Order: sequence, then structure tokens, then C-alpha cells
Amino acid sequence: MTKKIALLGSTGSIGTQTLQVVAEHPERFEIEALAAGGNTQLLLEQIRQFKPSKVSVATREAAQALKLQVPAGTQVYFGEEGLIEIAAGTDADTVVTAVTGSMGLPATLAAIDEGKTIALANKETLVTAGHLVMRRAAEKGVSILPVDSEHSAIFQCLNGEPRERLLGITLTASGGSFRHLSREELAGVTVEDALKHPNWSMGAKITIDSATMVNKGLEVIEAHWLFGLGYDEIGVLLHPESIIHSFVEFEDTSLIAQLGNPDMRVPIQYALTYPDRIPLRTKRLSLAEVGRLNFREMDFGRFPCLRMAYECGRMGGTAPTVFNAANEVAVARFLRREISFLQIEEILENVSARHVASADPDLETIREADEWARRIASE
Amino acid sequence: MTKKIALLGSTGSIGTQTLQVVAEHPERFEIEALAAGGNTQLLLEQIRQFKPSKVSVATREAAQALKLQVPAGTQVYFGEEGLIEIAAGTDADTVVTAVTGSMGLPATLAAIDEGKTIALANKETLVTAGHLVMRRAAEKGVSILPVDSEHSAIFQCLNGEPRERLLGITLTASGGSFRHLSREELAGVTVEDALKHPNWSMGAKITIDSATMVNKGLEVIEAHWLFGLGYDEIGVLLHPESIIHSFVEFEDTSLIAQLGNPDMRVPIQYALTYPDRIPLRTKRLSLAEVGRLNFREMDFGRFPCLRMAYECGRMGGTAPTVFNAANEVAVARFLRREISFLQIEEILENVSARHVASADPDLETIREADEWARRIASE
Repeated sequence: MTKKIALLGSTGSIGTQTLQVVAEHPERFEIEALAAGGNTQLLLEQIRQFKPSKVSVATREAAQALKLQVPAGTQVYFGEEGLIEIAAGTDADTVVTAVTGSMGLPATLAAIDEGKTIALANKETLVTAGHLVMRRAAEKGVSILPVDSEHSAIFQCLNGEPRERLLGITLTASGGSFRHLSREELAGVTVEDALKHPNWSMGAKITIDSATMVNKGLEVIEAHWLFGLGYDEIGVLLHPESIIHSFVEFEDTSLIAQLGNPDMRVPIQYALTYPDRIPLRTKRLSLAEVGRLNFREMDFGRFPCLRMAYECGRMGGTAPTVFNAANEVAVARFLRREISFLQIEEILENVSARHVASADPDLETIREADEWARRIASE
Repeated sequence: MTKKIALLGSTGSIGTQTLQVVAEHPERFEIEALAAGGNTQLLLEQIRQFKPSKVSVATREAAQALKLQVPAGTQVYFGEEGLIEIAAGTDADTVVTAVTGSMGLPATLAAIDEGKTIALANKETLVTAGHLVMRRAAEKGVSILPVDSEHSAIFQCLNGEPRERLLGITLTASGGSFRHLSREELAGVTVEDALKHPNWSMGAKITIDSATMVNKGLEVIEAHWLFGLGYDEIGVLLHPESIIHSFVEFEDTSLIAQLGNPDMRVPIQYALTYPDRIPLRTKRLSLAEVGRLNFREMDFGRFPCLRMAYECGRMGGTAPTVFNAANEVAVARFLRREISFLQIEEILENVSARHVASADPDLETIREADEWARRIASE
């Protein structure tokens, strides 16, 4: 029997790679619904190839234009409600949430309410509302399967293991595009420099987040919710080669690690086939060819954004929401060349310092904190 | 409820470390029986500490001397029959087979017949009679749990994974005491040089076997039987630091590895607690402290004994028995300074070349092949 998939964010990096995995295994997977943002041209190609029953785009205008071009019977939606329809209004078994930013949250909650398995590639969902999402998933008996390569690695390492014997987990971090630069040298870096990630080919936002180490900070918060671990049980290790994707440590001092070449299709496919695995046509990892793996203690002085992320995570409530929203604005401003690279962390520091966090916030409180943070970060 | 253990080879390296694990967790483990060779002094101390109901030593004389010193009620046995009594004649749930050489085989088979779980630290058992042991274990529904660090690593990596999706396994090899020497430089090495293993503190025989790579060859054959894999599915990778103990590769190109500091108590304890894990007081692995892991393709020209082991494994039948028996004699002769280091491999080559292997041999045929190989290797 094929697995029916609804994909949120089909034209982005994770979205297109998810469709590659689906296209390789038509006997296993079927696309039930697709949601995209503004790239209707690519979406149209995807609609023709995968024949979803429902699709959604960002705006009413785009939806109206799209309606004229889709095959008969394809229902077209738009906006936040459209995203929710794609996530929760179809026969899909699994919803892949690959939209960026905090817009994925209401759709994810709606999908959980409908009992759908979540393949989570949108880390802001857990960062801003981990307490709501995990509680709702537990109530509905819904699995949240990680798509991020680090979290997928941890998830794979925990297979068949006694969770109560886990001592902790360690997320590896390449250090991003500027890992060889000192803080002094960071002052003059450009947008072009920042977009050259050494190991992974990803979107602009996440590539900047890798250079600031905000991405790893968001991953730490995500891991806290996903695996139910305290912040003291989650470590970060510098590992420039990104070959060991992450590892777990047990009480008997045994470490289990997951390794591979950098290819997001591996964790994407795993989330779709778990607990099974199926073949993937990609380069196999040869450790002899790699030759050498390096590791270095994380330096919180060099990467203050990671320190801030831990602080926001420990504070909880709306603190991670504010950290994430301020970061989205700051990165957008950097990409528009309004501010320098180091001003990203200044903005995060200032906005976080001015925020008074609310504990156990509901969706409305989260939304208000998010808007407040964006406003302050824009000033 | 405590697990009752019978330990074959209690005074050796694995034996004493098994007793350390048992002593740390008296609430979990109980020693039901002990078998040792000639070190009756140490055995007596162990008897006083662990209070087994049955013990066995190598000879009638040693048994008679021991009887005068053991606490009342301790039954004393000797010889091969004594070893079988320890393995199969008690209430033990688990038998740890940590005797060296091919003498562990009849006792292991007897333990399997009694339905006891086998924690296997005697690799010759599977090398010489893997077909008999695994067949008997399958018939009796008995688990064979590996104690060797490499096989334990593979076993841990396979936890909860779909076995039919396994592409292959890779055993790591430090390269032994002489890994930095060329074949020319090997000509003049001494017994003292050979006994300095870079990472693991082990007995003399296995340390020499690490330097010749015979040990890795026996491990390959052991893995063939233990995990039911073809020889093409078992790789060996040079990894001088011995931090990654071994790893598995799945069809989706994902690699799962087990890592740790070199401490045999980790795999010993795991075999005793599987599928659970319990705390072990030992140094935790810090990859940041290690800093760097190196990997190199195996060089079969530099390590011809590994090539021969694969050949014997593929040939099957009595070929691995002959390889193993000839090696035991050759190593003993090297340790007695009768032959040079490189003559070990010459002997293996000559004895293997002269052997006509019998397919699917029974115990008697195995014994004859073993004796034949020892005689030829002594010439």
C-alpha cells in the first residue's frame, strides 16, 4: 500500500528533495496535496508530475491564476487557511511540514488533530510552540518524526534502545561559512561570503543561521521538545566535516552515532519509511576517502547566538519565540544589506533582553510575542 | 531478579573484567560457576569473593589441591568434562565463554543444548564450528551475544533496525603494534615490540594476532556466522584510534556506528544486560578531547594474514579451523622465540596451502583438522 503524503512548502529545498524521494518510489508514495508560497511556476510543474488532489499558494491572486492552469479536479486554496486545508483536509497519512518560519504552526496543529503523522522539517514549530505541539501529539497518539539531519540522526541512534538509559545527546555543528574566522574578522563579511556553506546546499536563511550558530541553537530547542530532554542533556560539538550527523550517549558510556554524506534526502526518506529503510540512489560514505574527522569543543564566546539560544530555551515560555522571530527579521535585514553580520547577534541580544517571557503561552500569546519581537528587531 | 552466570575462563583478561562488572552490580548478577586454567591462586580468591557452587580447573592435580581450600559445599571439577559441567550443569541463565583457543567449543555446545544464553568471548568457537554452533542455537532458540568489542558494536548498531535493509558491516582495525612499520621493517621486530598494543590492554596471544591482523581475520569469520552475512558484506577499515568500534551501513546509505574508549567492560556488560544498559564507572568518551579520528583503506598486501583469513572463510568447511590452529601454534612459537614475526604468516600460508578442506565437518573432523594443522605448523 502506498503512503499518502501532504507536503507543505513543496517548492523549497526540503520540499523539492521530498518530491525527488517520492518520484523514486512511486510504488511506496503518493502525493495527496501540495502547498507552496510564491513560486507558482514550479508548483505547476509539480502538480502535473504528482497529480495532487489539493494545492495551495500564498495569495488569492496566485490561486486565481493557478486555477486556470491546473488539471480538472485539482482544488486550489490559498493563504493560512489553504495551508491548513492541505495539512488537515485530505486523506494523507503523513504531513511533511517544510515551510520556513513560524507560519507552519497552525497547519501542523490541525494535522495533529486529524491524527496525521508529522514529518517535521519546520523547526520553528517546536521552537515557538513545543509545549503545545508535543502535548497535542501525545493526546492524539501522533508521531512527530524529525527531518532535520541532526534530529534524524538522534532518532536513528535511539532505535531499539532503552530511553531511560540515555545520558545525553550531542548535535554536531560544522561551524558554518565563517568557522575559520575570528570575531574580529567577522566584522567585515558580506552576504555573498555568508551564503557559501561548506557542506550543505540549503536555503539562504538557514545558511546564515548556520554561520551565526542560531540554527544549532534552534536545533537544541527543537531537540529538547522532540526527545523530552533537559538542556543539560543536549550538547553541541564542532565537527567541520559534518559526517557524524549527531550521536547519543548511554549510561554504560557507549556512544551510538549516525553518519553519512550531506544529503537531506536520507533523513527525508527515513521519516517517510520509518521504521523501515529503502534504497536511496546517492553517493555512499567512504570513511577511507574522507580520511579524517575533526572535533572541537563548542566555543560559546565565538558563537554567542548559541549561548543565547540555550538561555532562551531554559527560560522557556515565549522566550524562544522572541529569539526566533527577532532572528528572522535580523537575517532578512542582513540579506537586504541593511545591517552587518555581527549586528544580527546584537539585535538578538537587545530584543531578548527587553522581552519579559510569559510561561506556558497559548497560540495568541505566542503570536503577540512574535509580532512584538519582529517590530523591535526592525527598529 | 538476579541473572545467574557461569564464567568459563575466569582468570583471563575477559574473565577478570567480567567479574569486575558482576562485582559492581551485585543486585543484578550472581556467579553460579567458574572455570579457570592453571591460575588456581587467583581462582581461589574469586571463589571466596563470588561464592560459586561449582568450579573447574585444568588438571586433576590442581582440582585435588583446590578442594582442600574451597569453602564447604563448593564442588570442584577438572578438565574438558569439568568445563562442560560449569557450562551446562548449573542453574546459570547465561554462560560467558572466555576461554582462549578451540577448547571452548564442546562446552559451548553443551550450554546451548541446555538452553543457556551464550555471551561469546571465545571467537574460535565460531571460527572452527560456526555452522554447528549457529544451527544448534537456532534449533534451541538460544541467543549468541557477542562480547568482542567489534561484534558488540555491530550488534548495538543493529538494534531496532530492519536487518533485511543492511548493506554491510565494517569492522575497524587499529593496525596493531606495528601499524607504522613497512613489511621490510617487520623482519626484525621482537616479541617485546609485538606485545605493546597501542589501544587495548589484552592477553599476549590476541596482541600478537592484532599485529599480524589474524585477529581481525578471525573476527571477520566470526561476524560471518554471528550476523549471517556473506564475506563481501563484511569490510575492514584501518582506524588507528580504535574509537569507532565498528559500524553498519543500510540501503539508504545511512551508517550507524558505536563508539567508546577502549574498555572491554562495556561490551561485556552489554552482553549481560542486553537489551537494557546499566551505568558503568569508566571514563566517558570526549570526541573533543580525542580531537581527530583517522581512517585508511585496508592494505591486504601489508597484512596478508587478513587476505588469507577471507580466503579460508570463503572456502569454509575445515579451512578456518586449520587457519586458526596453525596460527595458535605459530604465535606460541613466536612467543617462545623459535620463529620470527614474519614466519607466522609463512606458516599460515604453508599449512593452508597443504590443507584439503572438508565441507560441513562434524566435531570429529574438525578435531582431526585442528590436530593435523598443529602438527604441520610445529614442523
